Amino acid sequence: MTLISEHVETDTRERILVVAERLFRQIGYQKTTVGDIAKELRMSPANVYRFFDSKKAIHEGVARGLMGGVEDAAQVIAGKRGSAAAKLRELMTTIHRMNCERYVGDSKLHEMVEIAMQESWEVCVAHMERVTETIGAVIAEGAASGEFEVDDVVEAAMCACTAMMRFFHPQMIAQCANKPGPSLDQMIDFVLAALTPHAKKN
Amino acid sequence: MTLISEHVETDTRERILVVAERLFRQIGYQKTTVGDIAKELRMSPANVYRFFDSKKAIHEGVARGLMGGVEDAAQVIAGKRGSAAAKLRELMTTIHRMNCERYVGDSKLHEMVEIAMQESWEVCVAHMERVTETIGAVIAEGAASGEFEVDDVVEAAMCACTAMMRFFHPQMIAQCANKPGPSLDQMIDFVLAALTPHAKKN
Repeated sequence: MTLISEHVETDTRERILVVAERLFRQIGYQKTTVGDIAKELRMSPANVYRFFDSKKAIHEGVARGLMGGVEDAAQVIAGKRGSAAAKLRELMTTIHRMNCERYVGDSKLHEMVEIAMQESWEVCVAHMERVTETIGAVIAEGAASGEFEVDDVVEAAMCACTAMMRFFHPQMIAQCANKPGPSLDQMIDFVLAALTPHAKKN
Repeated sequence: MTLISEHVETDTRERILVVAERLFRQIGYQKTTVGDIAKELRMSPANVYRFFDSKKAIHEGVARGLMGGVEDAAQVIAGKRGSAAAKLRELMTTIHRMNCERYVGDSKLHEMVEIAMQESWEVCVAHMERVTETIGAVIAEGAASGEFEVDDVVEAAMCACTAMMRFFHPQMIAQCANKPGPSLDQMIDFVLAALTPHAKKN
């Protein structure tokens, strides 16, 4: 395969995902068929199947793209200058906001998340691992500068992410909206307090 | 109504709930009818309806009883002697263990939880408020003795409970079992770190 045809193949793959995402948003995942996607792209269903061997594979591609957007935004923030605490707050706020927009405001995309969590759990796990790694990188920075006090960065990152479940997890965001509980900033303050150096014991 | 007949009424109410819980566990909430419950108690369905005006009301009574068991256990631990940190660890471990046993190990009871969360959300909210209050009481004790450093006890209690969502929330316990993440003790350590006095800033 030449470089040009490789480029065309990647392009077609990408176009299938863009159209699939649009249809999933418009008419929902369940109701969208591979035939609908092919029709929008003026190609045959057989051609779509050359790139994705099932509707589930298309769904995973779309889910990966949506989750990848959140991961990229988190990494950009992690790479900025500034205190680790400020970056962690911005990063966590961004993840919450993007997950709200993507999966909660949009009921059709929420359906997609539910399906991803049931059928493509490994895609969700990989996403959470990437987000946890990025949070871990900021925690490590803070630990190195003395801003944070952390015994084990990997453990601290897992705990920080888990503590934010109400604000990160699409199902929990939807379930807890307008329910009693801490605000996002109060929760981030609590997580930062867990990472902040403690008074020496007498 | 005399005191004796009041006692009998309470007793009948209690017996209906005990039988209902057993049937919900054995054959599931959806499949159990008010007729089944009445038959087990050798009374007429009309008599059951004298005490509970719907199957939903029976369900709420059973759910309240199950959740009340967890609340009572938490209060007993909160009332013990010992350091606030040790009590908080025991209390959180107990809530996790009881919720695992009640709602995750038993798929029929898990069905009940799902229904409670959809149809009787106020019962769930009242339960979470009671658990949060008990955790708040222990945090207040720790703050008073100088073991903890907390600006706002109510906020700290909400954050501590929210941070434990993976280990308290029946749906999250079920979803996260055997998935990457912190252990229960690591998560409790993280919560305690957020409450522990911090080094004075220079």
